[in-house]
Amino acid sequence: MELLEKLKWRYATKAMNGKKVPQAKIGDIVEAARLAPTSSGLQPFEIIEVTNPDVKKEIRKIGWNQSVITDCSHLLVFAAWDNYTAERINTMFDLTNEIRGFENEGWENYRQLLLSSYPQRDPEVNFNHAAKQAYIAFGLSIAAAAFEGIDSTPMEGFDADALDKILGLGEKGLRSCILLALGYRNTEEDWLVNLKKVRKSTEDFVTTIK
Amino acid sequence: MELLEKLKWRYATKAMNGKKVPQAKIGDIVEAARLAPTSSGLQPFEIIEVTNPDVKKEIRKIGWNQSVITDCSHLLVFAAWDNYTAERINTMFDLTNEIRGFENEGWENYRQLLLSSYPQRDPEVNFNHAAKQAYIAFGLSIAAAAFEGIDSTPMEGFDADALDKILGLGEKGLRSCILLALGYRNTEEDWLVNLKKVRKSTEDFVTTIK
Repeated sequence: MELLEKLKWRYATKAMNGKKVPQAKIGDIVEAARLAPTSSGLQPFEIIEVTNPDVKKEIRKIGWNQSVITDCSHLLVFAAWDNYTAERINTMFDLTNEIRGFENEGWENYRQLLLSSYPQRDPEVNFNHAAKQAYIAFGLSIAAAAFEGIDSTPMEGFDADALDKILGLGEKGLRSCILLALGYRNTEEDWLVNLKKVRKSTEDFVTTIK
Repeated sequence: MELLEKLKWRYATKAMNGKKVPQAKIGDIVEAARLAPTSSGLQPFEIIEVTNPDVKKEIRKIGWNQSVITDCSHLLVFAAWDNYTAERINTMFDLTNEIRGFENEGWENYRQLLLSSYPQRDPEVNFNHAAKQAYIAFGLSIAAAAFEGIDSTPMEGFDADALDKILGLGEKGLRSCILLALGYRNTEEDWLVNLKKVRKSTEDFVTTIK
Protein backbone atom coordinates (compact mmCIF):
# COMPACT_ATOMS: atom_id res chain seq x y z
CA MET A 1 0.00 0.00 0.00
CA GLU A 2 1.33 3.39 -0.99
CA LEU A 3 0.57 4.98 2.37
CA LEU A 4 2.54 2.28 4.21
CA GLU A 5 5.55 2.90 1.97
CA LYS A 6 5.36 6.56 2.92
CA LEU A 7 5.10 5.69 6.62
CA LYS A 8 8.26 3.59 6.29
CA TRP A 9 10.00 6.56 4.64
CA ARG A 10 8.87 8.84 7.49
CA TYR A 11 11.08 9.26 10.54
CA ALA A 12 11.36 11.78 13.38
CA THR A 13 13.53 14.25 11.51
CA LYS A 14 16.23 15.70 13.76
CA ALA A 15 17.60 18.35 11.39
CA MET A 16 15.78 20.35 8.73
CA ASN A 17 17.21 22.56 6.00
CA GLY A 18 15.00 25.62 6.40
CA LYS A 19 13.30 25.34 3.00
CA LYS A 20 9.68 26.43 2.85
CA VAL A 21 6.92 23.90 2.35
CA PRO A 22 4.27 25.17 -0.11
CA GLN A 23 1.33 26.58 1.82
CA ALA A 24 -1.10 24.31 -0.05
CA LYS A 25 0.64 21.24 1.35
CA ILE A 26 0.54 22.67 4.87
CA GLY A 27 -3.15 23.27 4.29
CA ASP A 28 -3.65 19.61 3.40
CA ILE A 29 -1.78 18.46 6.52
CA VAL A 30 -3.95 20.71 8.70
CA GLU A 31 -7.04 19.58 6.83
CA ALA A 32 -6.29 15.95 7.68
CA ALA A 33 -6.39 16.94 11.36
CA ARG A 34 -9.61 18.88 10.88
CA LEU A 35 -11.21 15.80 9.32
CA ALA A 36 -10.13 13.55 12.18
CA PRO A 37 -12.84 11.82 14.21
CA THR A 38 -13.26 13.07 17.77
CA SER A 39 -15.31 11.91 20.72
CA SER A 40 -18.94 13.04 20.23
CA GLY A 41 -17.69 15.17 17.33
CA LEU A 42 -16.64 17.93 19.71
CA GLN A 43 -13.29 18.66 18.02
CA PRO A 44 -11.88 19.84 21.33
CA PHE A 45 -8.62 21.24 20.02
CA GLU A 46 -7.10 23.77 17.66
CA ILE A 47 -3.89 24.15 15.71
CA ILE A 48 -1.56 27.12 15.92
CA GLU A 49 0.59 27.35 12.79
CA VAL A 50 3.82 29.18 13.54
CA THR A 51 6.16 30.51 10.85
CA ASN A 52 7.32 33.71 12.57
CA PRO A 53 11.11 33.34 13.13
CA ASP A 54 11.15 35.28 16.41
CA VAL A 55 8.32 33.23 17.88
CA LYS A 56 10.03 30.02 16.76
CA LYS A 57 13.21 31.17 18.54
CA GLU A 58 11.24 31.77 21.73
CA ILE A 59 9.67 28.33 21.47
CA ARG A 60 13.05 26.68 20.87
CA LYS A 61 14.26 28.10 24.19
CA ILE A 62 11.53 26.25 26.07
CA GLY A 63 11.69 23.24 23.73
CA TRP A 64 14.88 21.51 24.80
CA ASN A 65 16.73 23.67 22.26
CA GLN A 66 15.67 21.33 19.45
CA SER A 67 16.99 22.77 16.18
CA VAL A 68 14.02 21.68 14.07
CA ILE A 69 11.86 24.18 15.94
CA THR A 70 13.67 27.02 14.20
CA ASP A 71 14.82 25.16 11.06
CA CYS A 72 11.45 23.77 10.13
CA SER A 73 9.21 25.48 7.62
CA HIS A 74 6.02 25.44 9.72
CA LEU A 75 5.60 24.50 13.35
CA LEU A 76 2.15 23.15 14.19
CA VAL A 77 1.13 23.41 17.84
CA PHE A 78 -1.76 21.10 18.74
CA ALA A 79 -3.62 22.70 21.66
CA ALA A 80 -6.58 21.11 23.42
CA TRP A 81 -9.49 22.67 25.28
CA ASP A 82 -8.58 23.20 28.93
CA ASN A 83 -12.07 22.04 29.88
CA TYR A 84 -15.43 20.97 28.48
CA THR A 85 -17.92 23.76 29.13
CA ALA A 86 -21.64 23.94 28.37
CA GLU A 87 -20.95 26.71 25.89
CA ARG A 88 -18.40 24.67 23.97
CA ILE A 89 -20.64 21.60 23.89
CA ASN A 90 -23.63 23.64 22.75
CA THR A 91 -21.62 25.36 20.04
CA MET A 92 -20.70 22.04 18.45
CA PHE A 93 -24.20 20.57 18.75
CA ASP A 94 -25.69 23.77 17.29
CA LEU A 95 -23.19 23.63 14.43
CA THR A 96 -24.29 20.07 13.69
CA ASN A 97 -27.93 21.10 13.53
CA GLU A 98 -27.03 24.05 11.34
CA ILE A 99 -24.95 22.05 8.87
CA ARG A 100 -27.39 19.13 8.68
CA GLY A 101 -30.40 21.41 8.55
CA PHE A 102 -32.57 19.67 11.15
CA GLU A 103 -32.87 18.85 14.84
CA ASN A 104 -33.06 15.26 15.97
CA GLU A 105 -34.46 14.02 19.26
CA GLY A 106 -31.78 11.39 19.82
CA TRP A 107 -29.06 13.92 19.12
CA GLU A 108 -30.66 16.46 21.48
CA ASN A 109 -30.89 13.82 24.20
CA TYR A 110 -27.23 13.07 23.67
CA ARG A 111 -26.46 16.78 24.02
CA GLN A 112 -28.22 16.78 27.39
CA LEU A 113 -26.29 13.69 28.46
CA LEU A 114 -22.99 15.46 27.78
CA LEU A 115 -24.18 18.72 29.36
CA SER A 116 -25.16 16.84 32.50
CA SER A 117 -21.84 15.06 32.83
CA TYR A 118 -18.83 16.70 31.14
CA PRO A 119 -18.79 20.24 32.60
CA GLN A 120 -19.08 18.85 36.14
CA ARG A 121 -15.97 16.72 35.84
CA ASP A 122 -12.50 17.66 37.04
CA PRO A 123 -11.06 20.04 34.39
CA GLU A 124 -7.88 17.95 34.31
CA VAL A 125 -9.90 14.87 33.35
CA ASN A 126 -11.59 16.87 30.62
CA PHE A 127 -8.33 18.32 29.34
CA ASN A 128 -6.78 14.86 29.18
CA HIS A 129 -9.75 13.56 27.25
CA ALA A 130 -9.61 16.51 24.87
CA ALA A 131 -5.85 16.06 24.44
CA LYS A 132 -6.34 12.45 23.41
CA GLN A 133 -8.63 13.58 20.61
CA ALA A 134 -5.90 15.98 19.50
CA TYR A 135 -3.47 13.05 19.42
CA ILE A 136 -5.71 11.13 17.00
CA ALA A 137 -5.72 14.18 14.72
CA PHE A 138 -1.98 14.46 15.18
CA GLY A 139 -1.68 10.92 13.80
CA LEU A 140 -3.71 11.89 10.76
CA SER A 141 -1.48 14.93 10.15
CA ILE A 142 1.60 12.74 10.36
CA ALA A 143 0.07 10.39 7.79
CA ALA A 144 -0.83 13.31 5.51
CA ALA A 145 2.64 14.83 5.78
CA ALA A 146 4.30 11.52 4.95
CA PHE A 147 1.90 10.96 2.06
CA GLU A 148 2.89 14.36 0.65
CA GLY A 149 6.60 13.62 1.09
CA ILE A 150 6.96 16.29 3.74
CA ASP A 151 9.23 15.54 6.68
CA SER A 152 7.88 15.96 10.17
CA THR A 153 9.06 15.83 13.75
CA PRO A 154 6.65 14.99 16.57
CA MET A 155 7.75 16.66 19.82
CA GLU A 156 6.48 16.37 23.36
CA GLY A 157 9.72 17.72 24.84
CA PHE A 158 8.80 21.30 25.71
CA ASP A 159 7.53 23.34 28.63
CA ALA A 160 3.80 23.42 27.93
CA ASP A 161 3.00 26.17 30.42
CA ALA A 162 5.71 28.40 28.95
CA LEU A 163 4.50 27.71 25.41
CA ASP A 164 0.94 28.55 26.42
CA LYS A 165 2.22 31.93 27.64
CA ILE A 166 4.22 32.61 24.45
CA LEU A 167 1.17 31.90 22.31
CA GLY A 168 -1.44 33.38 24.65
CA LEU A 169 -3.33 30.10 24.75
CA GLY A 170 -4.65 30.51 28.30
CA GLU A 171 -6.91 33.37 27.26
CA LYS A 172 -8.39 31.13 24.59
CA GLY A 173 -9.01 28.28 27.03
CA LEU A 174 -6.40 26.13 25.30
CA ARG A 175 -3.39 24.19 26.52
CA SER A 176 -0.60 23.01 24.21
CA CYS A 177 -0.17 19.23 23.95
CA ILE A 178 2.25 18.29 21.24
CA LEU A 179 4.18 19.85 18.35
CA LEU A 180 4.68 18.84 14.73
CA ALA A 181 7.54 20.50 12.90
CA LEU A 182 7.15 20.34 9.12
CA GLY A 183 9.88 20.81 6.56
CA TYR A 184 12.61 18.98 4.70
CA ARG A 185 15.31 16.78 6.17
CA ASN A 186 18.88 18.05 6.27
CA THR A 187 20.55 14.77 5.39
CA GLU A 188 24.06 16.02 6.13
CA GLU A 189 23.28 17.18 9.66
CA ASP A 190 20.75 14.61 10.82
CA TRP A 191 22.29 11.83 12.93
CA LEU A 192 19.08 9.78 12.69
CA VAL A 193 18.45 9.89 8.95
CA ASN A 194 20.53 6.83 8.05
CA LEU A 195 19.79 4.70 11.10
CA LYS A 196 17.39 1.77 10.87
CA LYS A 197 13.83 2.28 12.03
CA VAL A 198 13.25 0.37 15.27
CA ARG A 199 9.91 -1.24 15.99
CA LYS A 200 8.92 -4.25 18.04
CA SER A 201 7.94 -7.21 15.90
CA THR A 202 4.37 -7.71 14.73
CA GLU A 203 4.29 -10.84 16.92
CA ASP A 204 5.06 -8.75 19.99
CA PHE A 205 2.65 -6.02 18.91
CA VAL A 206 -0.55 -7.88 18.03
CA THR A 207 -2.52 -10.60 19.79
CA THR A 208 -5.30 -12.24 17.80
CA ILE A 209 -8.42 -13.67 19.40
CA LYS A 210 -10.08 -15.86 16.77
CA MET B 1 -4.54 14.75 -2.34
CA GLU B 2 -5.81 11.19 -2.58
CA LEU B 3 -5.53 10.59 1.17
CA LEU B 4 -7.68 13.64 1.93
CA GLU B 5 -10.37 12.38 -0.45
CA LYS B 6 -10.39 9.12 1.49
CA LEU B 7 -10.60 10.97 4.80
CA LYS B 8 -13.65 12.84 3.50
CA TRP B 9 -15.20 9.49 2.51
CA ARG B 10 -14.50 8.10 6.00
CA TYR B 11 -17.11 8.47 8.73
CA ALA B 12 -17.81 6.82 12.07
CA THR B 13 -19.76 3.88 10.67
CA LYS B 14 -22.76 3.06 12.84
CA ALA B 15 -23.87 -0.16 11.12
CA MET B 16 -21.73 -2.76 9.37
CA ASN B 17 -22.83 -5.66 7.17
CA GLY B 18 -20.76 -8.46 8.68
CA LYS B 19 -18.61 -9.08 5.59
CA LYS B 20 -15.04 -10.10 6.23
CA VAL B 21 -12.18 -7.74 5.44
CA PRO B 22 -9.26 -9.59 3.78
CA GLN B 23 -6.62 -10.37 6.40
CA ALA B 24 -3.91 -8.64 4.33
CA LYS B 25 -5.77 -5.34 4.60
CA ILE B 26 -6.17 -5.77 8.35
CA GLY B 27 -2.44 -6.44 8.45
CA ASP B 28 -1.77 -3.14 6.69
CA ILE B 29 -4.00 -1.23 9.10
CA VAL B 30 -2.20 -2.76 12.07
CA GLU B 31 1.15 -2.12 10.40
CA ALA B 32 0.35 1.60 10.13
CA ALA B 33 -0.06 1.64 13.91
CA ARG B 34 3.16 -0.31 14.41
CA LEU B 35 5.02 2.26 12.30
CA ALA B 36 3.60 5.20 14.29
CA PRO B 37 6.05 7.45 16.10
CA THR B 38 5.97 7.20 19.90
CA SER B 39 7.63 9.18 22.65
CA SER B 40 11.27 8.02 22.99
CA GLY B 41 10.38 5.16 20.64
CA LEU B 42 8.97 3.12 23.51
CA GLN B 43 5.86 1.90 21.64
CA PRO B 44 4.01 1.63 24.94
CA PHE B 45 0.92 -0.14 23.63
CA GLU B 46 -0.33 -3.25 21.86
CA ILE B 47 -3.26 -4.17 19.67
CA ILE B 48 -5.66 -7.02 20.37
CA GLU B 49 -7.37 -8.13 17.16
CA VAL B 50 -10.71 -9.76 17.94
CA THR B 51 -12.69 -11.79 15.42
CA ASN B 52 -14.13 -14.44 17.77
CA PRO B 53 -17.95 -14.00 17.71
CA ASP B 54 -18.45 -14.98 21.36
CA VAL B 55 -15.81 -12.56 22.58
CA LYS B 56 -17.30 -9.80 20.41
CA LYS B 57 -20.71 -10.48 22.00
CA GLU B 58 -19.20 -10.17 25.47
CA ILE B 59 -17.54 -6.89 24.49
CA ARG B 60 -20.76 -5.52 23.02
CA LYS B 61 -22.44 -6.03 26.42
CA ILE B 62 -19.94 -3.69 28.06
CA GLY B 63 -19.73 -1.43 24.99
CA TRP B 64 -23.02 0.48 25.13
CA ASN B 65 -24.55 -2.34 23.03
CA GLN B 66 -23.08 -0.81 19.88
CA SER B 67 -23.97 -3.09 16.96
CA VAL B 68 -20.74 -2.57 15.06
CA ILE B 69 -18.89 -4.43 17.81
CA THR B 70 -20.51 -7.67 16.67
CA ASP B 71 -21.20 -6.75 13.03
CA CYS B 72 -17.70 -5.59 12.22
CA SER B 73 -15.17 -7.88 10.58
CA HIS B 74 -12.30 -7.23 12.98
CA LEU B 75 -12.35 -5.33 16.26
CA LEU B 76 -9.03 -3.74 17.16
CA VAL B 77 -8.49 -2.98 20.84
CA PHE B 78 -5.72 -0.46 21.46
CA ALA B 79 -4.27 -1.18 24.92
CA ALA B 80 -1.55 0.88 26.56
CA TRP B 81 1.04 -0.07 29.14
CA ASP B 82 -0.34 0.38 32.65
CA ASN B 83 3.01 1.82 33.72
CA TYR B 84 6.55 2.53 32.53
CA THR B 85 8.88 0.07 34.23
CA ALA B 86 12.66 -0.24 34.05
CA GLU B 87 12.25 -3.60 32.34
CA ARG B 88 10.03 -2.19 29.63
CA ILE B 89 12.31 0.78 29.02
CA ASN B 90 15.40 -1.44 28.89
CA THR B 91 13.72 -3.86 26.49
CA MET B 92 13.08 -1.09 23.95
CA PHE B 93 16.54 0.46 24.31
CA ASP B 94 18.16 -2.99 23.98
CA LEU B 95 16.06 -3.67 20.89
CA THR B 96 17.32 -0.43 19.36
CA ASN B 97 20.94 -1.39 19.99
CA GLU B 98 20.28 -4.85 18.57
CA ILE B 99 18.60 -3.61 15.39
CA ARG B 100 21.09 -0.82 14.75
CA GLY B 101 24.07 -2.99 15.65
CA PHE B 102 25.86 -0.58 17.94
CA GLU B 103 25.71 1.22 21.29
CA ASN B 104 25.80 4.99 21.41
CA GLU B 105 26.76 7.10 24.41
CA GLY B 106 24.07 9.72 23.87
CA TRP B 107 21.43 7.05 23.52
CA GLU B 108 22.65 5.27 26.68
CA ASN B 109 22.56 8.57 28.59
CA TYR B 110 19.03 9.06 27.40
CA ARG B 111 18.14 5.55 28.62
CA GLN B 112 19.44 6.50 32.07
CA LEU B 113 17.44 9.73 31.99
CA LEU B 114 14.23 7.79 31.38
CA LEU B 115 15.15 5.09 33.94
CA SER B 116 15.73 7.77 36.55
CA SER B 117 12.41 9.52 35.93
CA TYR B 118 9.63 7.42 34.36
CA PRO B 119 9.34 4.40 36.70
CA GLN B 120 9.19 6.69 39.75
CA ARG B 121 6.17 8.63 38.48
CA ASP B 122 2.56 7.97 39.42
CA PRO B 123 1.45 4.94 37.33
CA GLU B 124 -1.66 6.88 36.27
CA VAL B 125 0.53 9.64 34.78
CA ASN B 126 2.54 7.00 32.95
CA PHE B 127 -0.56 5.21 31.69
CA ASN B 128 -2.01 8.45 30.40
CA HIS B 129 1.21 9.25 28.60
CA ALA B 130 1.33 5.76 27.10
CA ALA B 131 -2.32 6.00 26.08
CA LYS B 132 -1.63 9.21 24.18
CA GLN B 133 0.99 7.42 22.12
CA ALA B 134 -1.61 4.76 21.35
CA TYR B 135 -3.95 7.51 20.15
CA ILE B 136 -1.38 8.74 17.61
CA ALA B 137 -1.11 5.19 16.27
CA PHE B 138 -4.89 4.97 16.30
CA GLY B 139 -4.95 8.00 13.99
CA LEU B 140 -2.54 6.28 11.61
CA SER B 141 -4.72 3.15 11.56
CA ILE B 142 -7.77 5.26 10.75
CA ALA B 143 -5.85 6.85 7.87
CA ALA B 144 -4.72 3.45 6.61
CA ALA B 145 -8.23 1.98 6.82
CA ALA B 146 -9.70 4.91 4.91
CA PHE B 147 -6.92 4.72 2.33
CA GLU B 148 -7.77 1.04 1.76
CA GLY B 149 -11.48 1.83 1.50
CA ILE B 150 -12.26 -0.05 4.71
CA ASP B 151 -14.89 1.44 6.99
CA SER B 152 -14.02 1.99 10.60
CA THR B 153 -15.67 3.07 13.83
CA PRO B 154 -13.64 4.67 16.62
CA MET B 155 -15.20 3.94 20.01
CA GLU B 156 -14.40 5.19 23.48
CA GLY B 157 -17.83 4.23 24.84
CA PHE B 158 -17.11 1.03 26.76
CA ASP B 159 -16.27 -0.10 30.27
CA ALA B 160 -12.49 -0.31 30.10
CA ASP B 161 -12.07 -2.29 33.33
CA ALA B 162 -14.61 -4.87 32.18
CA LEU B 163 -12.92 -5.13 28.77
CA ASP B 164 -9.54 -5.61 30.43
CA LYS B 165 -11.04 -8.55 32.33
CA ILE B 166 -12.62 -10.11 29.22
CA LEU B 167 -9.29 -9.96 27.39
CA GLY B 168 -7.04 -10.71 30.36
CA LEU B 169 -5.12 -7.49 29.83
CA GLY B 170 -4.30 -6.88 33.50
CA GLU B 171 -1.96 -9.89 33.59
CA LYS B 172 -0.11 -8.42 30.64
CA GLY B 173 0.25 -5.01 32.27
CA LEU B 174 -2.07 -3.46 29.70
CA ARG B 175 -5.19 -1.31 29.91
CA SER B 176 -7.63 -0.85 27.04
CA CYS B 177 -7.95 2.71 25.71
CA ILE B 178 -9.98 2.84 22.54
CA LEU B 179 -11.53 0.52 19.95
CA LEU B 180 -11.51 0.52 16.18
CA ALA B 181 -14.14 -1.63 14.49
CA LEU B 182 -13.24 -2.48 10.88
CA GLY B 183 -15.62 -3.70 8.21
CA TYR B 184 -18.03 -2.48 5.58
CA ARG B 185 -20.88 -0.01 6.03
CA ASN B 186 -24.43 -1.27 5.98
CA THR B 187 -25.91 1.62 4.03
CA GLU B 188 -29.51 0.56 4.64
CA GLU B 189 -29.23 0.39 8.40
CA ASP B 190 -26.83 3.23 9.14
CA TRP B 191 -28.57 6.46 10.20
CA LEU B 192 -25.34 8.41 9.84
CA VAL B 193 -24.20 7.31 6.39
CA ASN B 194 -26.10 9.97 4.43
CA LEU B 195 -25.72 12.87 6.86
CA LYS B 196 -23.26 15.64 6.16
CA LYS B 197 -19.90 15.55 7.88
CA VAL B 198 -19.74 18.27 10.55
CA ARG B 199 -16.49 20.09 11.24
CA LYS B 200 -15.74 23.56 12.50
CA SER B 201 -14.42 25.83 9.79
CA THR B 202 -10.74 26.08 9.01
CA GLU B 203 -10.88 29.68 10.28
CA ASP B 204 -12.09 28.47 13.67
CA PHE B 205 -9.61 25.60 13.69
CA VAL B 206 -6.29 27.21 12.79
CA THR B 207 -4.53 30.34 13.98
CA THR B 208 -1.47 31.45 12.02
CA ILE B 209 1.43 33.32 13.58
CA LYS B 210 3.46 34.75 10.72
